[in-house]
Amino acid sequence: MQIAYRSLEPCAMLSPVPAVMVSCRASAPQSAPNIITVAWAGTVCSSPPMVSISLKPERHSYRLIEESGEFAINLVGADRCREMDWCGVNSGRTQDKFAACGFEPVPVEGLACAPGIGGSPAIIGCRVKDILPLGCHSLFLAETVSVRVREDLFDEQGNIHLERARLVCYSHGIYQAATQVLGFFGWSVARPETLQRRMSQYQQLMEAPCPGTVRNT
Amino acid sequence: MQIAYRSLEPCAMLSPVPAVMVSCRASAPQSAPNIITVAWAGTVCSSPPMVSISLKPERHSYRLIEESGEFAINLVGADRCREMDWCGVNSGRTQDKFAACGFEPVPVEGLACAPGIGGSPAIIGCRVKDILPLGCHSLFLAETVSVRVREDLFDEQGNIHLERARLVCYSHGIYQAATQVLGFFGWSVARPETLQRRMSQYQQLMEAPCPGTVRNT
Repeated sequence: MQIAYRSLEPCAMLSPVPAVMVSCRASAPQSAPNIITVAWAGTVCSSPPMVSISLKPERHSYRLIEESGEFAINLVGADRCREMDWCGVNSGRTQDKFAACGFEPVPVEGLACAPGIGGSPAIIGCRVKDILPLGCHSLFLAETVSVRVREDLFDEQGNIHLERARLVCYSHGIYQAATQVLGFFGWSVARPETLQRRMSQYQQLMEAPCPGTVRNT
Repeated sequence: MQIAYRSLEPCAMLSPVPAVMVSCRASAPQSAPNIITVAWAGTVCSSPPMVSISLKPERHSYRLIEESGEFAINLVGADRCREMDWCGVNSGRTQDKFAACGFEPVPVEGLACAPGIGGSPAIIGCRVKDILPLGCHSLFLAETVSVRVREDLFDEQGNIHLERARLVCYSHGIYQAATQVLGFFGWSVARPETLQRRMSQYQQLMEAPCPGTVRNT
């Protein structure tokens, strides 16, 4: 049977995309740090590890990052979704966002200027390699120079459990928490014992149907 | 109090990122369509609407997309997460992925070659503008030429509710469903009546604590 679709004007529909807080600072001593909320971000290469963020030239952080050549990506858990939204609708020209949100600026390994946001599930230090004007946004291509993950997100075996942070993603205008674990890379072809061992970590999540969703499957 | 962190070697830690199925086909008549699972994808510009996907040159789909200059991004709901993973660990050189997964190839507005995957929550037609070698991956920058959203994801007022599709995202090796709605862009500064009107659509989601998550907030 043919499934019905509705056509829209071409627009940004790729979803979910990351919802993160990008922190930055101009290179001049004592210059104030800033935070910009970014959803137009992505991983663009595994080796070397590279990310991209897209920013509008009129944004205050654009100049800070262009000038310093640095920024930090701070992953965001559901507990800071409101602060992230607030940072996205206010400007560093008129607001000290770190102070307003009660965030602590912390040093980022490998970066000289940009601070990270203390308490973030993970803080990724990035150095700008290229800036490509595309239209209303410019694409910043950056190499990942450091990665720090919050200690409470590791298990006893040293495995990272980002799902504990209830990371926020963005889908066409709404913020959602990434919650229920569906599987791991390769689970569709994993041997039964591997599947059992890996998925047992998530059993509680897998068994519990998630009321935070609307049934349509 | 100082929050403890553990440092890792620089790696791909940006999370959650989109987990999507990209469909493509060479331009030669009768050539077979293929599907490649992609998590290194992102929105890079709003106007013109542009996306990026990163692919390894050794992947079968790399040549198909390079040659045809087209691909379709198919958003993926939790109900097809297993098929998506399978498409990510198998090659179109040896497998007819559409047939193996029982997917129906459907025409994509604005594209001459690449089919979409019928039943996907949304199908995004993309035309390649540039290919940038970065390292183990090359970045494909593409303009969005068409967007179709499944009819059952619209409400009576014509608002899109992607949350109904339980879209899949990828976080450091695991697939998760984007579920609980936390807010909408601007909610932190919305007037009470706006907040009430917008959030009432998600009230059921907001009120239900989601057992598909580990409490740490």
